[in-house]
Amino acid sequence: MLHPLASGDGPEPELMCIFGTGDLGRSLGLCLLQSGYRVVYGSRRPHSCGPLPEGAQVMTHEESARSAKMIFVCVHREHYEFLEKMAPQLERKVSPNPFCVFSRLVPKAAVVKGLNTLSTWALQNGLLAGRQVYLCGNNGEAKRDVAEMATKLGLTVVDKGSLSAAKEVEDFPLQLFPEWRMPLYVAFGLSAFFFLYLVIRDIIYAYVENDEDISYRIMISLANKITPVVSLIMLSLCYLPGAIAGFLQLYRGTKYRRFPNWLDRWMLCRKQLGLLALGFALLHAIYTLIIPARYSDRQRVISNVKKNTTTPLYFDNTSAWRTDSLYALGILGFFLFVLLGLTSLPSVGGTLSWREFSFVQSTLGYLTLFLSTAHCYIYAWDKFLRKSTYKWYTPPDSMLCLIVPSVTLVLKLVLVLPCVNRPLMRIRQGWERNRLKDEMGELKATNM
Amino acid sequence: MLHPLASGDGPEPELMCIFGTGDLGRSLGLCLLQSGYRVVYGSRRPHSCGPLPEGAQVMTHEESARSAKMIFVCVHREHYEFLEKMAPQLERKVSPNPFCVFSRLVPKAAVVKGLNTLSTWALQNGLLAGRQVYLCGNNGEAKRDVAEMATKLGLTVVDKGSLSAAKEVEDFPLQLFPEWRMPLYVAFGLSAFFFLYLVIRDIIYAYVENDEDISYRIMISLANKITPVVSLIMLSLCYLPGAIAGFLQLYRGTKYRRFPNWLDRWMLCRKQLGLLALGFALLHAIYTLIIPARYSDRQRVISNVKKNTTTPLYFDNTSAWRTDSLYALGILGFFLFVLLGLTSLPSVGGTLSWREFSFVQSTLGYLTLFLSTAHCYIYAWDKFLRKSTYKWYTPPDSMLCLIVPSVTLVLKLVLVLPCVNRPLMRIRQGWERNRLKDEMGELKATNM
Amino acid sequence: MLHPLASGDGPEPELMCIFGTGDLGRSLGLCLLQSGYRVVYGSRRPHSCGPLPEGAQVMTHEESARSAKMIFVCVHREHYEFLEKMAPQLERKVSPNPFCVFSRLVPKAAVVKGLNTLSTWALQNGLLAGRQVYLCGNNGEAKRDVAEMATKLGLTVVDKGSLSAAKEVEDFPLQLFPEWRMPLYVAFGLSAFFFLYLVIRDIIYAYVENDEDISYRIMISLANKITPVVSLIMLSLCYLPGAIAGFLQLYRGTKYRRFPNWLDRWMLCRKQLGLLALGFALLHAIYTLIIPARYSDRQRVISNVKKNTTTPLYFDNTSAWRTDSLYALGILGFFLFVLLGLTSLPSVGGTLSWREFSFVQSTLGYLTLFLSTAHCYIYAWDKFLRKSTYKWYTPPDSMLCLIVPSVTLVLKLVLVLPCVNRPLMRIRQGWERNRLKDEMGELKATNM
Repeated sequence: MLHPLASGDGPEPELMCIFGTGDLGRSLGLCLLQSGYRVVYGSRRPHSCGPLPEGAQVMTHEESARSAKMIFVCVHREHYEFLEKMAPQLERKVSPNPFCVFSRLVPKAAVVKGLNTLSTWALQNGLLAGRQVYLCGNNGEAKRDVAEMATKLGLTVVDKGSLSAAKEVEDFPLQLFPEWRMPLYVAFGLSAFFFLYLVIRDIIYAYVENDEDISYRIMISLANKITPVVSLIMLSLCYLPGAIAGFLQLYRGTKYRRFPNWLDRWMLCRKQLGLLALGFALLHAIYTLIIPARYSDRQRVISNVKKNTTTPLYFDNTSAWRTDSLYALGILGFFLFVLLGLTSLPSVGGTLSWREFSFVQSTLGYLTLFLSTAHCYIYAWDKFLRKSTYKWYTPPDSMLCLIVPSVTLVLKLVLVLPCVNRPLMRIRQGWERNRLKDEMGELKATNM
Repeated sequence: MLHPLASGDGPEPELMCIFGTGDLGRSLGLCLLQSGYRVVYGSRRPHSCGPLPEGAQVMTHEESARSAKMIFVCVHREHYEFLEKMAPQLERKVSPNPFCVFSRLVPKAAVVKGLNTLSTWALQNGLLAGRQVYLCGNNGEAKRDVAEMATKLGLTVVDKGSLSAAKEVEDFPLQLFPEWRMPLYVAFGLSAFFFLYLVIRDIIYAYVENDEDISYRIMISLANKITPVVSLIMLSLCYLPGAIAGFLQLYRGTKYRRFPNWLDRWMLCRKQLGLLALGFALLHAIYTLIIPARYSDRQRVISNVKKNTTTPLYFDNTSAWRTDSLYALGILGFFLFVLLGLTSLPSVGGTLSWREFSFVQSTLGYLTLFLSTAHCYIYAWDKFLRKSTYKWYTPPDSMLCLIVPSVTLVLKLVLVLPCVNRPLMRIRQGWERNRLKDEMGELKATNM
Repeated sequence: MLHPLASGDGPEPELMCIFGTGDLGRSLGLCLLQSGYRVVYGSRRPHSCGPLPEGAQVMTHEESARSAKMIFVCVHREHYEFLEKMAPQLERKVSPNPFCVFSRLVPKAAVVKGLNTLSTWALQNGLLAGRQVYLCGNNGEAKRDVAEMATKLGLTVVDKGSLSAAKEVEDFPLQLFPEWRMPLYVAFGLSAFFFLYLVIRDIIYAYVENDEDISYRIMISLANKITPVVSLIMLSLCYLPGAIAGFLQLYRGTKYRRFPNWLDRWMLCRKQLGLLALGFALLHAIYTLIIPARYSDRQRVISNVKKNTTTPLYFDNTSAWRTDSLYALGILGFFLFVLLGLTSLPSVGGTLSWREFSFVQSTLGYLTLFLSTAHCYIYAWDKFLRKSTYKWYTPPDSMLCLIVPSVTLVLKLVLVLPCVNRPLMRIRQGWERNRLKDEMGELKATNM
């Protein structure tokens, strides 16, 4: 008997066929056997194909395909030609996990794509439980069978429609953070710009004008200027597209026209922009906390003491208020930012109700942006007025980075004014300026 | 032909009907089409209802309802009256996602509630995968169909029973952190109390008695006194109800009588109390770490140097031990607290076995409480004895905040004494003081 | 009528039978009732068994078993003998959640194991949603029924095959972090060794040779030397087995021979090693950040000022570069380490594609190891040359801890050399040095 679990008195477990006895085939076979299926391997040389999982059989391709319900093709794409010859046997068989080629070669097989997102490594290490797989296929019944099988392996199945619609599923395992690409470019570009700007304004300026070598500042001081600046700009870039979209809807008087492509794409990468901003904020926090432990900072304290060793110490209450407010705003902003980040964890965000999620992402998000911007304004403080700030006639980085967040906050402020907010809300509920009001019973159910 | 995926050779995909061509209806239709369903919209003016997802049809309400298996009602509650007239067509149709009204209007339709927790926003952005939906309905078969459909959209379905039992499901999307309300009130109340207390004792006292303006301390020093105090009290409030429950069971001699309502509600919000305490602890940690970077702290160092510039420096070993122990206990306590917080993430806690979870939440939790309380005792140290501590005859905050955690720890200590623990364990395994022992084969299986 | 939800017009909900009216039985019954099942309890004294969930019936064991489809045995193992007598009634009934004994006593019942991983506590608090349960059983149909029931309760079901294969499932709820045991031993052993080593080299040495009492350093200074050392060693122990495996495959010329047992077990606990290392790194970070707030550090600053109060301050650019680089590398390494830790959260790691996961775990992991090792090299810096470093002829801890990471990085460097990497890649794709190449169409499909 084939069946390793023959002691059960239920119906015999289903037979799965795997073409290819390579690494992927072996791991997959083991997983299927552990989940109670019977497994038969199809091989062109069934008698010399190396060690296979215990309990599995090996046959020729033709034999193995005949009795099985599903056929997993775990063979390199280059060796697909043998499938063509087998077309009659494969007719009406379910075949999960094949590459595109397969469905062209054997048009009558019920092809279901999506398991290709699983790696040999995950299969070998029992890491399937809870992983998502996207299935697509033209044959509903076949898809249901594959979904059932995948569920038994502990996978979470998401139906992605027909084969034609699912080029993306195929490319999925080879993608490297596609939705992170744009935000990463932005982060990298901003960092590089501010790095160059600060090297020139701080290090080279000090060297040229004061003949001072403060190049050691690159490691921490400069990094601690770049990270907050990039973090604040990217955080406001998270909220700017939403504000722009609001104004666009107001201007157009309807919400039924698509946004321009650049705005659409911008809105889709808000989450990634925000998480990158959080990363930069975290770095900024650690860089700031390490300051008092630095050699240069300690020397500065000592030299401060030495400078005015005779005069009595003057305690400036304004300075105390200012630095403490600076830190307090920064800490609170960072704290809220961490909360925002936590709710973007799939397992946390998934438990929030709709209103909770929108409260966190919108209200808390704008509060974070406001606190961070205020933190930066207090840092810039009276630098606006001092002439020494404008080294070589350039504005300091703390001024440059205030532009985008200030604009975003002003736009948002305008949008929440009652006289602006009311028409916008009506538009968002489906009202259109240039059209007859829809008939009753038909109206937009935005808040359901 | 209706069907956009007609190339498949399987059975024709099911037809879903959506009443209402608003925002929600359009997003939902798109999702359904992507998952391989056919979609038909029901509209009172099928010929002028704006842009709809590609592949969907529009008909009148009556026509669309006739052929479909499920009907999604995406129309504002106010416009429900048309449904009444359609009652005959809706009979025996499955209708997920309706409001309460619907099931009263069309009593013979098989109503399944729960999809209303999904927002238009989530539908538009493909954020369905992994989200939980709670289904309830009186018709088992209809519920099964809706569950299957929801699963295909990638949702995780939790069955919540019949319609009558599920008022809560209906209100779910409109709730704003209901289980957080009580703990948030507690946190806010405690913070406000200690803020006032400290403003009077520290700032106003210094101003009145010493004519000193130290109002700048509000931003960080005061916050850094409030956060640890509130955090410690709330952490102990997490563990106090469990101890009280133990004593109550001992006193009653049985575990089969319900706890009083206040205790029940208290026990149910322990997780939220603990997470809020963790938030306060995190703020306390950052506030403490920022201290040496503050202007006031630097001035203090400089003035310290100036004060005794001639006398040789005296290194007090006891002070060194004390502050280092203070910090070490705080750090270890915070570290364990973060571990506790991590296990309360759904995706982490879900992978723990029962014994692991109870080990983390009980043993590690009490250890955290013990370390934090010790941290606070070392901070209070010899202040108990100094007269200057009792400004205006009030005890310092560090003493006030030790009351609840000390009581909690003492109660727990009593409960783990063998002579108290043994009867309690017996009670928890089902033994009752005032009742005949249950017959064999019937006994409480607590630890299964 | 039994049924509390009788208003539905669908088929009558299924009847579940629970043996035992203890804590577990009551909680389970309540959950089942909430999910729309009917529940009947089996008890030997049906008329005196305490409060039961509303809507449930109580009968004798025999009666209750007769009509139900599934029977949950919630009775202590010691009281199983009554089941033997009931064998005829239990024949062909589905029984989830029994202990091993049950299937021996009633061999004809369709036993499905796995629900025993649920605790009374989880059942009482509605914490089922999203939890994983492992089912195993010999009867496929019974398993399917139980899986369907479990899914209705919101559980995620993973099929683990037949009863015989599933001793592990049974022991699961009683396990206490089994996969963490080995890494915890390693962490504890390393910590204890370095603690003793540092106590002798630092504290006792200072006492014996300089007659100085610096015992206060145990609390923070020593901890802050132990944590980074253990963290770095454990992080490199994460990556060492992978490198060793590479060399072993190169030496053997095939990947089809099993690794020795110790290597296999080592590879399986890499995740836990890494997470523990992250914990130690976090402690190290906090310990470092707290340094400037410590009493001893402040005294040191003051004494530094006093020592050279007359000489002008000399600012050493090299020291500034060195300490800033030390901190910058540490911060960046820690930041990447936190990212690595985040992707090991089930809910985050599960959303990564295969290539993303391998990029994070391999490329980012080695980068983290490299940065941390560089951080440590900069710390050790010129200590190699100073004679005063070798107290009592022992090397400092910062040198000891560099051995394992340096070896790991050198091994990895060798493995990525093109002349070594190419044959290794071929071996990993299935090529074998001592075997005829497999026929076409059969070849290893590693990267699918």
